[in-house]
Amino acid sequence: MSPSAYAGVDVGGGGVRVRIEAGEESAYGEDAAPVPRERGRVDLHRLADRIAASVEEMGVDRLDTMAIGVTGLPGLVREPGTLWDALRPRFGLGALVVAGDMVTTHVGALGFAPGVVVAAGTGVITLGTDLDGVWNQADGWGHLLGDHGSGTWVGQQGLHAALRAHDGRAGGSPALLERMTARFGPPLDLVAFVYESASPAHCLASFAPSVAEAARAGDPVSRRIWTEAGRQLAQTAVAAASGLEPVFSWGGRLFDAEDLLMEPFQSAVSALLPGARFAAPRGTSADGALALARAAAADGPLPPRHPYLYVFAETPAAITPTGGPGAQPPPRTR
Amino acid sequence: MSPSAYAGVDVGGGGVRVRIEAGEESAYGEDAAPVPRERGRVDLHRLADRIAASVEEMGVDRLDTMAIGVTGLPGLVREPGTLWDALRPRFGLGALVVAGDMVTTHVGALGFAPGVVVAAGTGVITLGTDLDGVWNQADGWGHLLGDHGSGTWVGQQGLHAALRAHDGRAGGSPALLERMTARFGPPLDLVAFVYESASPAHCLASFAPSVAEAARAGDPVSRRIWTEAGRQLAQTAVAAASGLEPVFSWGGRLFDAEDLLMEPFQSAVSALLPGARFAAPRGTSADGALALARAAAADGPLPPRHPYLYVFAETPAAITPTGGPGAQPPPRTR
Repeated sequence: MSPSAYAGVDVGGGGVRVRIEAGEESAYGEDAAPVPRERGRVDLHRLADRIAASVEEMGVDRLDTMAIGVTGLPGLVREPGTLWDALRPRFGLGALVVAGDMVTTHVGALGFAPGVVVAAGTGVITLGTDLDGVWNQADGWGHLLGDHGSGTWVGQQGLHAALRAHDGRAGGSPALLERMTARFGPPLDLVAFVYESASPAHCLASFAPSVAEAARAGDPVSRRIWTEAGRQLAQTAVAAASGLEPVFSWGGRLFDAEDLLMEPFQSAVSALLPGARFAAPRGTSADGALALARAAAADGPLPPRHPYLYVFAETPAAITPTGGPGAQPPPRTR
Repeated sequence: MSPSAYAGVDVGGGGVRVRIEAGEESAYGEDAAPVPRERGRVDLHRLADRIAASVEEMGVDRLDTMAIGVTGLPGLVREPGTLWDALRPRFGLGALVVAGDMVTTHVGALGFAPGVVVAAGTGVITLGTDLDGVWNQADGWGHLLGDHGSGTWVGQQGLHAALRAHDGRAGGSPALLERMTARFGPPLDLVAFVYESASPAHCLASFAPSVAEAARAGDPVSRRIWTEAGRQLAQTAVAAASGLEPVFSWGGRLFDAEDLLMEPFQSAVSALLPGARFAAPRGTSADGALALARAAAADGPLPPRHPYLYVFAETPAAITPTGGPGAQPPPRTR
C-alpha cells in the first residue's frame, strides 16, 4: 500500500510553487511563468492544467489531498469548484482546499496560531485571523486599486522616478533612469512593453529588483521607495489586527529584500501599535498549503469560510473520520 | 463651387470631438464613447471609422483638409498613415495632419505662439514648444507609468482613499467610501468592474467627478488629492519650459474643476519658476486641430516633427503653393 500523499500549491504573481509529501519523501517544484489570466482575472481552467503539469513533472500521479493558495482571491477568482472538477479525476483526490494566498501564507508563517500576516509579492494582501471568528482582510485590491507597498508598487514607483528624471520633473532618479534604460531601452519601448502586456502588474514588478539594487548602491530616491513600501505594509498590517493579539508575521517574495524593508515595516507597525510583537515566518505559502492539505486528511479541513477558504471533498464522511497521516485513504469513486 | 471645408478632430480619453468649418458655417459634434483600443494601444482602423461616422453624422461628405489630435501619441500610436489611407478616399482629403493631442491642445490654447501647455483629461501630457526648434514633452506616459495629476490619477487616488477607509487603513476617506459604494457597489464589484474593463484608466477616471464633489463638500482627503494633482501638473509643466519664455496655459476636461485645481497649479508653478506667466486658453484641442487643418490648406502645414506631428498630402506641390483660405482647392486624384 502506498503512503498517503499530499500536495500544497502556492499560486502567486510570481508563478506556481508546489510542495509534495508522501510518507517520508518530499519534493518541491517551481514554475515561474506568470499565472494565466483573462482580463485580469485568474483563468482557472488554464491554471488547473498548469498545476497538474507541475505535479506530474515531479513524478506524482495520485494524491490524497491537495490545497491551493491562489492570488487574487477574493474578487478575481469566481468559481473555485473549477479546480476541483479539473484536478480530482486527474489525481484521484479525496479532498481539495482552495484558499486565498493570504490564508496559505498565514498558515505557513504562524502555523495555525492567531495573528496578522502580510503576504507581499507581486501584490499585497494582509490577513488577521484566528481561523475562527476573526477574519480581517486589508488591501489585496490589485495594482490599480491598492497593493500598496507590493512588488508591483515598488517597481512602479521606481519607473515613475526614472521617467521623472527623463522628463526633468521633480522627484526623479538618474540612477533608476539608467537602470530602466539598460533594462527596457528608451521610454517608448517601455511603454509598449507595459501597455501591450497581458500582465502589466508583472511587468511593473519586474523592476522592483532594480530598485533594490539602486537602493543598496545608495540612491536616495530608491531608498525612500523601500522605506515608504515598509510604511504602507505596516498601515495595512495594523488595519488587520483588530480583535487579535498584536502578533505580526510576513511572507512572500518581497521580503527577500528584508534588508531594505524590515526595519521600516517593523518600526512603522510599532509606532502605530505600541506593544506589537513580530514572529519570523516558520514557512512559506507553499508550506502553509501543504499543512492545510495534511490537516484536511488528518482532522478534516478547517471549516470553509467564504471568500477565503473553500473545501471540496468526495463526501463529508469520506474525510472527517479517517484520522491521522498515514491512515487508510478514504474510499474513492472515479 | 462649394467653399473650402476643414475639420479639426480631438481624440481624447473622453471620446471624439469634431469641429467643422465650411465657408461661414461651422459645426461641432461629440461622441463620448471611449476611444477604441487594442491592448492599451489606440486602434487606428476602428478610430478612422469612428471619426468618419462622426463627420458624416454632421452631414459632411467632402473635406479639403482635416487635422486630428490623438491621445497617446507618441508611443501608443504607431502608424498614423493608417488614418490617411482610411480617411482620404472617404472625404476626398487633400491633406491630413495627425498630431499628438498635446500639439492640438497647444495650438488651441496659445494659437501658434510659443509656451507650455498642459493637456489634462483622462491622461496628462505637457508640451513646451515654439513649433520650431524647441519640443519639450513631459509626462504622457499613461496611467501605469505616469499621468500624474490627470483625471485617471485623481479618480484612482480617490478610490485608494475609499478602500483605505473600507480596510481601516491610514489615509482613508469615509466620504469617498460612501460615494464609491453608491457608485460601484461593494468593493468586489468595483474590482470586477475595473480589472475586467477593456479600458481600466477610463474606469478610474470616471470617479474623478465624485472626488471633486467630495472636495467641494469639504472632505479634507479629497481636497488634498486635488491640491496634489495641481502640484503634479505644475512639476510637469515646469519640466517642459526649458528654452522657452515662461508662458503657461492649459486645456482638457480636467480643468473643468478649475475651482479645485487652478490655484494649486499656478502657485506651484510660480514657486518652482518665479516670473511664470499664465494665459487662459483661447480654445480647445478641437479648435487647435481646426486651426492646424486651416493652416495646412492656407500656408502649407507646419513641418512634420516625429513623433508629434505627421503630415499627409496628395503631393507636396499640391499643398504648399495654393495659398489662403478660400483659394482653389488643390487638384486631387482619386
